[in-house]
Amino acid sequence: MYEVEAKVAADHERVRRELDARDATAGETVVQEDTYFDAPHRDFAETDEALRVREQATVREGEAPGEALNGADSRVTYKGPLVDDESKTREEHETGVESGDELRAVLDGVGFTEAARVRKVRSYYALDGVTVTLDDVTNLGEYVEVELEVESEADIPDARERAYGVLRDLGLDPDDQLRTSYLGLLLE
Amino acid sequence: MYEVEAKVAADHERVRRELDARDATAGETVVQEDTYFDAPHRDFAETDEALRVREQATVREGEAPGEALNGADSRVTYKGPLVDDESKTREEHETGVESGDELRAVLDGVGFTEAARVRKVRSYYALDGVTVTLDDVTNLGEYVEVELEVESEADIPDARERAYGVLRDLGLDPDDQLRTSYLGLLLE
Repeated sequence: MYEVEAKVAADHERVRRELDARDATAGETVVQEDTYFDAPHRDFAETDEALRVREQATVREGEAPGEALNGADSRVTYKGPLVDDESKTREEHETGVESGDELRAVLDGVGFTEAARVRKVRSYYALDGVTVTLDDVTNLGEYVEVELEVESEADIPDARERAYGVLRDLGLDPDDQLRTSYLGLLLE
Repeated sequence: MYEVEAKVAADHERVRRELDARDATAGETVVQEDTYFDAPHRDFAETDEALRVREQATVREGEAPGEALNGADSRVTYKGPLVDDESKTREEHETGVESGDELRAVLDGVGFTEAARVRKVRSYYALDGVTVTLDDVTNLGEYVEVELEVESEADIPDARERAYGVLRDLGLDPDDQLRTSYLGLLLE
C-alpha cells in the first residue's frame, strides 16, 4: 500500500466553498496535539527518527477544540529511519496509553525533552475518491492536504495526477506543494 | 503514607500451613512479568532510577500463570531517585498501556535495552491486618513478604514490630530479611 499526498498552504474559507460547490462529503473534525521529543543521546532530526505522544479527540458541533482535548485518546509512536527509500518504509511502533500526561512525565524522567507541540484541527472531506484534509495548525496557519492510497507502485504516477487534479479543482496550485512536516515548519 | 515491609526467602508449603492454621484470609493470585530497561545515556543502577513495563494478570483456579499473561494488563512506570531519604520518597510516573509488546518496541527503538525480566506469581493473604505475599520468582525461588501501611512516620517502629511478629508467627526469622529487590537478586 502506498500513500500519495500533496500539501499546500491555503485559505480554508475559499476551499470550503469549492468543496461545497462540488458536493464533497464532509467527514468528522478532530483535534490532534502532538508532542515530539528530543532524545538525550542522539539527534532524531539527524537519524530521521521520531518519538511522539499524540492526543486526539473528535470535535463535536459547537465544541472548542481545546475542550475536546480534555477527553482525548493518547497514543505513543516511534518512527524509525527509512529502511527502504523507494517505498518510504519505516519501522513504526505504536500503542494507546491511558494518560498522555503520565507518559510524557515518564519520558521526561528518563531524560527525553519536549522538542515541540503541534496542535491542529483537522476537518476531513471526501471528493472523487480522494481524501481532502483541512488542517488549521496553531501558530502556523491553514493548510490543505489531498491524499489517496494505491496498491502498487505502478499506480503512483496516476494517483499523483488525480491528487493534483483535485488541488486544481479546489483552486490550488500543485506547484505550491510543501514537503516539510508541520513540525519542521514550526521549528524553522 | 508509609509502607513498612520485610521480605525473607521461605518455603511456601510450610508458610501456607501456618497461614491456614491461623485462619489467614486468602486473596487473589496474580502473575507479574516485569521488564526492566537500561538507558543508553546513563546508568540507572548508579542513578537509582528504574524504567519498567509490567504485565499483570489474575491467575484463575487451575490456570497456568503463562496462560494468564496472554490477557495481561500492561503499565509503564518510571521511578526516579530518592528525593527524601528519610521517607523514601521518589518521583514516580505510571500509566496503563494498550500493548506491552508495542511499548517495549518503542523503548527499544529509541535506544533502551532490556536489562532483565522478572516473572513472579504472587499469592496474597491477610493476617492480623498485615498483608502477607507469597512470591514464587522464576529462576530465583520462593519468598514471603509482609507489608503494612501507616499514616505517620511516628508509627513506623510499631508497624515494623507487628510485621516482624507476623513473620515469627509464620515460623520465619526477621533477621533473615533481604533488602535487595528481586531484580537485584537476579542480576547478582
